[in-house]
Amino acid sequence: MKAKPIPLQSVKLQDRIWQSRFQLVRDEVIPYQWDALNDRIPGVPPSHAIRNFRIAAGESEGEFKGFVFQDSDLAKWLEAVAYVLAVEPNPELEKTADEVIDLIANAQQPDGYLNTYFTIAEPDKRWTNLRDWHELYCAGHMMEAAVAYYEATGKRKLLEVMCRFADYIAETFGPEPRKLQGYPGHPEIELALVRLYHGTGGEKYLKLSKYFVDQRGQEPHWYDIEAQRRGDVPKYYFSDIGYNYSQAHLPVRQQETAEGHSVRALYLFSGMADVAVETGDEELLEVCRRLWDNVTLRRMYITGGVGSERYGERFTFDYDLPNDRAYTETCASIALVFFAHRMLQADMDAKYANVMERALYNGVLSGISLDGKSFFYVNPLEVWPEAGRVRHDLQHVKTERQGWFACACCPPNAARLLASIGRYMYSAGEDTAYIHLYAASTAELVLAGMKVRLIQETDYPWQEKVTIKVEPEEAREFAIAVRLPDWCEDPSLAVNGKEADLTQATSRGYAYIRRTWQPGDTIELTLPMPVQRISANPKVRENAGRVALQRGPVVYCLEEVDNGPNLSAVILPRDSELSAQWRSDLLGGVVTIHGKALRIDEDRWNGKLYMPAKAPPATREIEITAVPYSTWCNRKPGEMLVWIREA
Amino acid sequence: MKAKPIPLQSVKLQDRIWQSRFQLVRDEVIPYQWDALNDRIPGVPPSHAIRNFRIAAGESEGEFKGFVFQDSDLAKWLEAVAYVLAVEPNPELEKTADEVIDLIANAQQPDGYLNTYFTIAEPDKRWTNLRDWHELYCAGHMMEAAVAYYEATGKRKLLEVMCRFADYIAETFGPEPRKLQGYPGHPEIELALVRLYHGTGGEKYLKLSKYFVDQRGQEPHWYDIEAQRRGDVPKYYFSDIGYNYSQAHLPVRQQETAEGHSVRALYLFSGMADVAVETGDEELLEVCRRLWDNVTLRRMYITGGVGSERYGERFTFDYDLPNDRAYTETCASIALVFFAHRMLQADMDAKYANVMERALYNGVLSGISLDGKSFFYVNPLEVWPEAGRVRHDLQHVKTERQGWFACACCPPNAARLLASIGRYMYSAGEDTAYIHLYAASTAELVLAGMKVRLIQETDYPWQEKVTIKVEPEEAREFAIAVRLPDWCEDPSLAVNGKEADLTQATSRGYAYIRRTWQPGDTIELTLPMPVQRISANPKVRENAGRVALQRGPVVYCLEEVDNGPNLSAVILPRDSELSAQWRSDLLGGVVTIHGKALRIDEDRWNGKLYMPAKAPPATREIEITAVPYSTWCNRKPGEMLVWIREA
Repeated sequence: MKAKPIPLQSVKLQDRIWQSRFQLVRDEVIPYQWDALNDRIPGVPPSHAIRNFRIAAGESEGEFKGFVFQDSDLAKWLEAVAYVLAVEPNPELEKTADEVIDLIANAQQPDGYLNTYFTIAEPDKRWTNLRDWHELYCAGHMMEAAVAYYEATGKRKLLEVMCRFADYIAETFGPEPRKLQGYPGHPEIELALVRLYHGTGGEKYLKLSKYFVDQRGQEPHWYDIEAQRRGDVPKYYFSDIGYNYSQAHLPVRQQETAEGHSVRALYLFSGMADVAVETGDEELLEVCRRLWDNVTLRRMYITGGVGSERYGERFTFDYDLPNDRAYTETCASIALVFFAHRMLQADMDAKYANVMERALYNGVLSGISLDGKSFFYVNPLEVWPEAGRVRHDLQHVKTERQGWFACACCPPNAARLLASIGRYMYSAGEDTAYIHLYAASTAELVLAGMKVRLIQETDYPWQEKVTIKVEPEEAREFAIAVRLPDWCEDPSLAVNGKEADLTQATSRGYAYIRRTWQPGDTIELTLPMPVQRISANPKVRENAGRVALQRGPVVYCLEEVDNGPNLSAVILPRDSELSAQWRSDLLGGVVTIHGKALRIDEDRWNGKLYMPAKAPPATREIEITAVPYSTWCNRKPGEMLVWIREA
Repeated sequence: MKAKPIPLQSVKLQDRIWQSRFQLVRDEVIPYQWDALNDRIPGVPPSHAIRNFRIAAGESEGEFKGFVFQDSDLAKWLEAVAYVLAVEPNPELEKTADEVIDLIANAQQPDGYLNTYFTIAEPDKRWTNLRDWHELYCAGHMMEAAVAYYEATGKRKLLEVMCRFADYIAETFGPEPRKLQGYPGHPEIELALVRLYHGTGGEKYLKLSKYFVDQRGQEPHWYDIEAQRRGDVPKYYFSDIGYNYSQAHLPVRQQETAEGHSVRALYLFSGMADVAVETGDEELLEVCRRLWDNVTLRRMYITGGVGSERYGERFTFDYDLPNDRAYTETCASIALVFFAHRMLQADMDAKYANVMERALYNGVLSGISLDGKSFFYVNPLEVWPEAGRVRHDLQHVKTERQGWFACACCPPNAARLLASIGRYMYSAGEDTAYIHLYAASTAELVLAGMKVRLIQETDYPWQEKVTIKVEPEEAREFAIAVRLPDWCEDPSLAVNGKEADLTQATSRGYAYIRRTWQPGDTIELTLPMPVQRISANPKVRENAGRVALQRGPVVYCLEEVDNGPNLSAVILPRDSELSAQWRSDLLGGVVTIHGKALRIDEDRWNGKLYMPAKAPPATREIEITAVPYSTWCNRKPGEMLVWIREA
């Protein structure tokens, strides 16, 4: 561990994007979700989540309803609430949270067990189907909420509830013959247990996490054993995929590629990274690096989206990145951020932060509308609404954001990430401050034994200048490492107006400025942001002959509302100049991209379907407007395209 | 009806392609299928078709096995046998056929009913689920076989069996309240009944066909009525598609677009065309023209394939023609040939023959391997084998032809078409001979009251010259109409060496040569065959920036075996000269296409996934070889691509 993230409380955001998203989470998403959890939203199928806890606590009568993992919706809501409370006081929200924590505590069973489904509906079936049911997953989410709530408020009630549950789980699972040698079908508890270890110092939680990590995929296969005990044929429900679906096809140390359900995979890899770092397990860390490379160099969309197929919501194979059929679940990009953030602390290599930034500004932000009221579960890179309506193999692709989903994993997941974005921006080592993300903000770090305030003034990602004011309590030597983003071909950096030589001071994508810092010193980082045309590796067959537009970390797209229908008929000439324009009136304030392009002339076709090609095809000149991918479909529905034909 | 096809017996083929395919059907496919029908092929799941008939005939004991439409496999086999017998004597094959006809006759019930499933398994459920089961479909196929066998051999036994069955069906279905107001879920009997009318003169068969055509989609909806009678919820099995799946969403005269299962649709449209022509129903014929235009101008692949999606094996919507996910069932291209052939007789417009030719040389021939032993059910236009193996949404795409299918509709369907290809080549009107397809052959027509022999000498589609020797019994005036294919931009025609003015004599794509023909007169048709680059309408999003190569009616493709892996990295420059070469040693003798192209250089990528585009992308010059699409995957499996990037 080279450095650690600084506490969320230590970061105050003033940034246009993240601050507005924080406010949306606080003012729109959390209240809406609370109503949803309480079945109070007309026209939306009831969640039943709170009601399930009431029944489990003996405060109500009735049957369990909802998915087997319904408890996790409340956990994610509580976790998001904790982050809001960490950032700013909110007594009313805290009171609501305290009450629901009392309810959760009341639903805990005498032995420590906590899961409303198995408490209400099938009390004798605890732990009998780890493969398909989500007991350990739900436990993990509630552990995360408990630690976050404790860190935000200092209140220990939920933390103690979850420690009791974790103790019970540790009694239940392990290598001893009297215990179960199982592990969760949906990873999550691995990273949550390490968080519980961080929150409590309880080493048995780390040990249990390591057990779950290493037990995965071992033979004889637990999913076969438990299936036989149930009297089931030990056959997977996604029979074409098999154990890959939940990354249980091999012991994790033998895994070479990211396989199966992409959220499960990235939660697992996050937990593996945690265990590797905390236990000093270099072999396991090397596995994480290998899987990272596989994901980000061969299986990731330019938006930071992952998951190339609906079936199994999964990774498929190298370079298979279809744009219209992408699954690219919002939760998977969120999980990629989690994995990136952990690897970043381990290796302090900007390659992790680069992907984290890419996912945040593109594949994560796209999941939530600008008004915070509707959500994409799936984030394709090309949308033809008629195809989405008619084609069965595009059934998963919604052409507009939806109010709420039956399986409501993405909205609360986005909420907890967006409410805690401050945690991802800085790390502090012994005497080095790391700045990973640029956004107007103030951070307080402890460095070289004293407090140091770092004040970022910037309109990143729209503008290229980032000014960082350094305010140590007193003049002292330490280093500030600023990330030089991979998208930037020509960064420059000055300290108190004096240009620094980046070739000397740069390591793994960070420029290290070590000096005796005086209060009031200023770093000026300049990250020139020309509009870039990005090509994909030629092995990505879908993007052959196409480019994506990017400016800074922001990926752009064409929308029908700006560019008319049939975006595949738009050709961007190689020599066409593209310019960026700040539009305060548009989409909450964005930089748009403009330029001349060509559009294939449909007139001469006269209803024909095929004709001899008369070179070059007849075109007319048009002006195109590209908007940030994450903001698409906030005006009106229509076609959208990221990868534009180039000629 | 302007003209009628001439009998199959009147055409003798010498052509390289069709004659070799006829021999394959005779020597490979028919014997193989006979073994399959008799459950004698090791390693192939038993068909049980013959055994079902034995059980139904009381000659064996046992249970029905196979699909509910298993009988139709035998019917299609018999129909193919009939065509072989029409072309040349084959006493042994005829003996086998006669014996199986005896068996079929013995399986007929006293009331005329004939269907082994309902006779053996569910005798009390006849006609209770027209929507999902295939009684009328199986009946139709056996009627076609019966007429074909009668026309080939003069033997009436099966014809009489099927007339009895048709009489019974006519007693069962109709507008009278005591009858059922139903119609088949899978159309086929409509066209078969018109064929039975042609074979017997029985007008009630035509009337019954018209009833089925016009009853389709009427309200109250028969599929609801029969579902209620069964006690089922009247809900369709393809619930997303609904009645569209079997073209029962509207009365046929109100249908504007081709919807649903593509084979069902095209069988229905074929039957509608038959009824329209035979009853002089101009309104219905106009509906057929409208549906034809919808299929061929907006929903057809360049190969003559149709059906853009696996789910429902169906038409989707205009211009939705994805290449890798195409369903393009061999049977659907065959059905398109049926529809084209009927519309051609009605309107004598070359647009129908052009599509017929396109489908035959490409989407139909691709379905069967050059050795006649393996078959494609699905004929995509782009194949990336790894995607086919891994992706669930490409599960239907086989990357190699298969030996036999559980649902073995395509192989026998291809067999019956390929065995009867002579029927599609000529039509004869009062005093006009129409030549639709070019192939070395001899045809005997009755024109202006006498026999006329037309002898085609040509190596079409590989060579551009077609010499037609005209041999009337005596000198007499009549017209010969030769099709000027739509792919040919500069046809020319000479009679006895004297150039004809085609602008004068051409109507609807046929050059009419009316004169007093002398024995020994010669028509020389020259159809220049440069290699053509074909563009798709810009609304076909998948083909933007791409061209297909075509020479004459033959569509070409790139294969990995000739051009290496990753065909999407191949770019065909607009100015690259493409040449054609006759290769007698390759793929049974084909013309291949050669030229210089570029391949994107993968080296500079060095493992990266995305990089700023440095224009133009680094490429290296390569030599490409394209082979006829229909012959792909006859050497070794690998990638295949029809639509090539152009720059």
